[in-house]
Amino acid sequence: MEEAFVPFRGIRNDIERRLLCYKQDWAGGFRAGFRILAPTTYIFFASAIPVISFGEQLERNTDGVLTAVQTLASTAVCGIIHSIIGGQPLLILGVAEPTVIMYTFMFNFAVQRPDLGRELFLAWTAWVCVWTAALLFLLAILGACSIINRFTRLAGELFGMLIAMLFMQQAIKGLVEEFRIPNSGNPSLLEFLPSWRFANGMFALVLSFGLLLTALQSRKARSWRYGSGSVRSFVADYGVPLLVVVWTAISYIPSQTVPKGIPRRLLSPNPWSHGAFQNWSVVKDMMSVPYLYIIGALIPATMIAVLYYFDHSVASQLAQQKEFNLRKPPSFHYDLLLLGFLTLMCGLIGIPPSNGLLRNRLVAVARESFRMNSSLGQLYGNMEEAYQQMQTPLIYQESSQRGLNRLKESTVQLASEAGPPDAPTDETVFDVEKEIDDLLPVEVKEQRLSNLLQAVMVAGCVAAMPALRMIPTSVLWGYFAFMAIESLPGNQFWERILLLFTAPSRRYKVLEGNHGAFVETVSFKTIARFTIFQTVYLLLCFGITWVPTAGVLFPLLIMLLVPVRQYVLPKFFKAVHLQDLDAADYEEAPPIPFNNPMEVEAEFLDAMMTRSRGEIKHVYSPKLTSSSTTNTPVEDVSRFPEKAYSPRFIQLRGIATTPPGYTTNGQGSNVGTSRSGGEE
Amino acid sequence: MEEAFVPFRGIRNDIERRLLCYKQDWAGGFRAGFRILAPTTYIFFASAIPVISFGEQLERNTDGVLTAVQTLASTAVCGIIHSIIGGQPLLILGVAEPTVIMYTFMFNFAVQRPDLGRELFLAWTAWVCVWTAALLFLLAILGACSIINRFTRLAGELFGMLIAMLFMQQAIKGLVEEFRIPNSGNPSLLEFLPSWRFANGMFALVLSFGLLLTALQSRKARSWRYGSGSVRSFVADYGVPLLVVVWTAISYIPSQTVPKGIPRRLLSPNPWSHGAFQNWSVVKDMMSVPYLYIIGALIPATMIAVLYYFDHSVASQLAQQKEFNLRKPPSFHYDLLLLGFLTLMCGLIGIPPSNGLLRNRLVAVARESFRMNSSLGQLYGNMEEAYQQMQTPLIYQESSQRGLNRLKESTVQLASEAGPPDAPTDETVFDVEKEIDDLLPVEVKEQRLSNLLQAVMVAGCVAAMPALRMIPTSVLWGYFAFMAIESLPGNQFWERILLLFTAPSRRYKVLEGNHGAFVETVSFKTIARFTIFQTVYLLLCFGITWVPTAGVLFPLLIMLLVPVRQYVLPKFFKAVHLQDLDAADYEEAPPIPFNNPMEVEAEFLDAMMTRSRGEIKHVYSPKLTSSSTTNTPVEDVSRFPEKAYSPRFIQLRGIATTPPGYTTNGQGSNVGTSRSGGEE
Repeated sequence: MEEAFVPFRGIRNDIERRLLCYKQDWAGGFRAGFRILAPTTYIFFASAIPVISFGEQLERNTDGVLTAVQTLASTAVCGIIHSIIGGQPLLILGVAEPTVIMYTFMFNFAVQRPDLGRELFLAWTAWVCVWTAALLFLLAILGACSIINRFTRLAGELFGMLIAMLFMQQAIKGLVEEFRIPNSGNPSLLEFLPSWRFANGMFALVLSFGLLLTALQSRKARSWRYGSGSVRSFVADYGVPLLVVVWTAISYIPSQTVPKGIPRRLLSPNPWSHGAFQNWSVVKDMMSVPYLYIIGALIPATMIAVLYYFDHSVASQLAQQKEFNLRKPPSFHYDLLLLGFLTLMCGLIGIPPSNGLLRNRLVAVARESFRMNSSLGQLYGNMEEAYQQMQTPLIYQESSQRGLNRLKESTVQLASEAGPPDAPTDETVFDVEKEIDDLLPVEVKEQRLSNLLQAVMVAGCVAAMPALRMIPTSVLWGYFAFMAIESLPGNQFWERILLLFTAPSRRYKVLEGNHGAFVETVSFKTIARFTIFQTVYLLLCFGITWVPTAGVLFPLLIMLLVPVRQYVLPKFFKAVHLQDLDAADYEEAPPIPFNNPMEVEAEFLDAMMTRSRGEIKHVYSPKLTSSSTTNTPVEDVSRFPEKAYSPRFIQLRGIATTPPGYTTNGQGSNVGTSRSGGEE
Repeated sequence: MEEAFVPFRGIRNDIERRLLCYKQDWAGGFRAGFRILAPTTYIFFASAIPVISFGEQLERNTDGVLTAVQTLASTAVCGIIHSIIGGQPLLILGVAEPTVIMYTFMFNFAVQRPDLGRELFLAWTAWVCVWTAALLFLLAILGACSIINRFTRLAGELFGMLIAMLFMQQAIKGLVEEFRIPNSGNPSLLEFLPSWRFANGMFALVLSFGLLLTALQSRKARSWRYGSGSVRSFVADYGVPLLVVVWTAISYIPSQTVPKGIPRRLLSPNPWSHGAFQNWSVVKDMMSVPYLYIIGALIPATMIAVLYYFDHSVASQLAQQKEFNLRKPPSFHYDLLLLGFLTLMCGLIGIPPSNGLLRNRLVAVARESFRMNSSLGQLYGNMEEAYQQMQTPLIYQESSQRGLNRLKESTVQLASEAGPPDAPTDETVFDVEKEIDDLLPVEVKEQRLSNLLQAVMVAGCVAAMPALRMIPTSVLWGYFAFMAIESLPGNQFWERILLLFTAPSRRYKVLEGNHGAFVETVSFKTIARFTIFQTVYLLLCFGITWVPTAGVLFPLLIMLLVPVRQYVLPKFFKAVHLQDLDAADYEEAPPIPFNNPMEVEAEFLDAMMTRSRGEIKHVYSPKLTSSSTTNTPVEDVSRFPEKAYSPRFIQLRGIATTPPGYTTNGQGSNVGTSRSGGEE
């Protein structure tokens, strides 16, 4: 990152670096052949269903002015443009919850003004987008991404929790509405009789909880005991979209006995319906907006710019972590500039703009892949599960048969030496060799083809609107609750809240899983004070979104966290505690040099398949590898088997996991100091 | 157990032995004072809700002839009599599912016969009870309990699975019926309009799944991280009855918007309604039953006797396990005799008889208390959880402060020596001393007072019928599903079925939990063949219950398992494999001498509080105790910390748990040989 504000320098650097690998970005995708379909469909489903959900939310909040047709169109258009001329291909664009919230505020404001009203709403949002784009241009040109470091985990996780609360709020609101006559409904219809309304509400409860509970289960599929590995992976990756289909099918079971409108389904019009795509002519109405409102549009525009800037930059930084083994340069500034253009374009054709928020979620999925529990008893399970988790289609698997065979040999030897003398040869005991085969290095691939394809598929969704309209709205409410709950694990703010309610005698259990350094280095009292402060702040942010017009300013409260963190909190907390409590996620891993020649040499998928043994050696801990290459009798290991199977053994590319149950009092304060180190 | 059939000898022995401790049986309860209320309420709820559920099932199956009023009355009367003059006080009587199934067959048979019909149904069942009682007398007098050893785990677990399937069948049937007009319903009522029927069905789905899912969660409360230990214990013990109340309250939320009959609630009449207790005069109709049917009643009577004998004896044996540390003699034969008298009495006053099946479930709860996972990482968790599990009100906790303090000291020392050098003193880390305090020896108490009180409380339920009638039927269907699912864990047949579907690479996970010896000693192929045979047999048994009249013979199929196990199976399986696959539950624990003087000396609750240190020494494994009494520096332990925290460490009274992930090929064939050893 740049140290000083030099206009355009960031953008220029980004473009220059990215152009160098532009050809490779495409070539990598094409070389992958049909295998590209796995990441493509995964990203497609991971972005399409939320976008449809947000469309339904927007449809209700804007009285049908904006619908899933528009959110899908925005996601598709922005996705196609970004996949072709964008910087960082890991960025996936889509209409997101903050946009929906801001558009809701704007709509509620507009309909109250007689000189604006529902008619000029879209024209006014076009002006908002114009201002937003201008602000984003400014931020990109000034290289303002450098100051993103000020947005610490505190702000990021508080924002994440706020979004989760908004999701949950929508889920509950949506469910309650299923018991009522909708605004757009004709009360004289059969389905709005009290009995059918009650039946519809109860059916909605069944469908939404059904989706929620099965979706949550399906995400755990990788650790299921049952079914083959490929089935478990498939369920974990595609289970949720599949379940949307399943619960939609279930919603048709009683169709013989209930009126047509039960359960209620997506309200979005077909794209070929009258008026569905009239938005594009919004430009001609823009000059009808009174001047005062054009200037006033600067206020929501600033808020949207803040949100996009915040989201975009935090997500970019996350994606650029060393753990992903990205071999190509980042592109913060250029992508922000492009985001400005895309916002402008969306505004002018009257559709809600897309931003890079979704990547956050996808990155979280990828990060999760690298996390591994480690305890003596779970070693073999971890080996396989680690591999299973890595199989998410966002990540490719590399293999070097020569090196791996060596590794396998020695590990089988280790396993049999460490076990009891009467080690099993029985068939009921799992096959060690097979497990080792599964433990392979991983790498996140950057390429553009899958993004382009998925954006085209989203565009296809617009045409498939008649099929999408079969989805019951209650399934989407369940999906909102699912999104809220799914976003919580890994959020240390949430985990700290849970810690407050954990019985003192069971706090040690937190140490057994993945946990931040703070659990070991900061006293419980301090953790409690910090968490209560953050919770109060969160409730303030949530409360302000309920205020009719001033609620639009809620992003300001998030921004305000920067000075609060820098000037207010140090007065109440020790600096070293704050550092641990607010340590960036990736700081828990020790940094490794960026331009590792061994990583650069293997650029493409094909090349990766024949990686040198030296690479493998780099991946695993020295201890094990040394015994694996020399094949000496491992006496020292068999005496302390739990050391041989220490977390270092399954450490992948420098991601250290703290041994569970052990404390690192002496080391805790060392982490969290390399926040801005050597990324560019 | 007796080796030869000598009439009356078993009964005489039982009575003589039991009379010796009869006074103590009462004194122990009274000395406990108010503490007796914990086991009393626990047993009350654990028996009342199923009995109400069976009443509702019976009400539907017998067209309202028998209802929850009768099942509660039978449970109360039999319970009171048994608590006063019964043998083994651990036996808790109640109307159970096999009785309901048999009465259903009998009712369906009776209504088809014009010379019997609905009117003479109860008179005919009185005859069935007469025959049943006669057969039970015969079995008791002949000391036939001795042959119960022939009913191996194979039969017991198959029967358990059959009951689970019948529960699940009732849950599904009940839920489907919620969408239909009930037989007893007036189709012209508002609540039976198609819209309200659909609404009622959906509401039923919500209520039953709500109860099922929350009840399953509440049973796991002891391992929750949140809330204090006492809250967790309370939720685990009383959560399910509490949830019945909660979901009943929830069912009243929409009462403003729905007709009175939605959701449907318990159909049982109030005991003071006309005809609710006319059954008692059934004796005078008995002579109206045609002679052919009086003789024919022998067929269902044999089946019921078989079921009761089977249930009663298996449960008695289970309860008499060494692990419970019972200090009083068993009472198999006398209790069977008494069961015969009670069956006769119930038949003559026209209520369904109770049997000792419920104890099975309670014993399972108690047994569960003794089971502990054991792995290095989970040691501390286990210590506390083991204690938490022991806190179930069926089991008292003893403490010997002197001995325990010694133990504590040495364990704290051990823990700090075994841990890493920079062991935590931080407050966020759990308190070792506190955990050790929780790890205390346990004992199952035999006394009569709690049984008497709970039976009186069940009698009170009959008077509280208007309150019970507020329970929605759908909550009971959810409860049926809960009973089915709750009965599965610990059933090795079920666990073997799961093993068949477990991915080969994850079979090692089975070894991590509690598992039977067979997993390690028998090849997967053999396990699969055995399990498939058992599954086919189970489906046969389940299938026969669907056959209208011949279905009454389904207990014969269970009986048939004895010769099948003894003569047919050995032709297809190796004897040593069969022994492991069919090993009795308690055989997995090595036997300890019955009349341990140290156990006899501490007879009463008060005495237990001051137990000698020698007792503690007996409870824990010699290795740890030796270091705890000598307080020598434990170098050998710190060198191999995983040995110090081996399962033996938390072994309680000889219940060996196999270390997870390790195989005991050499030892496996040693277990399972002491089935009939020295219990009397």
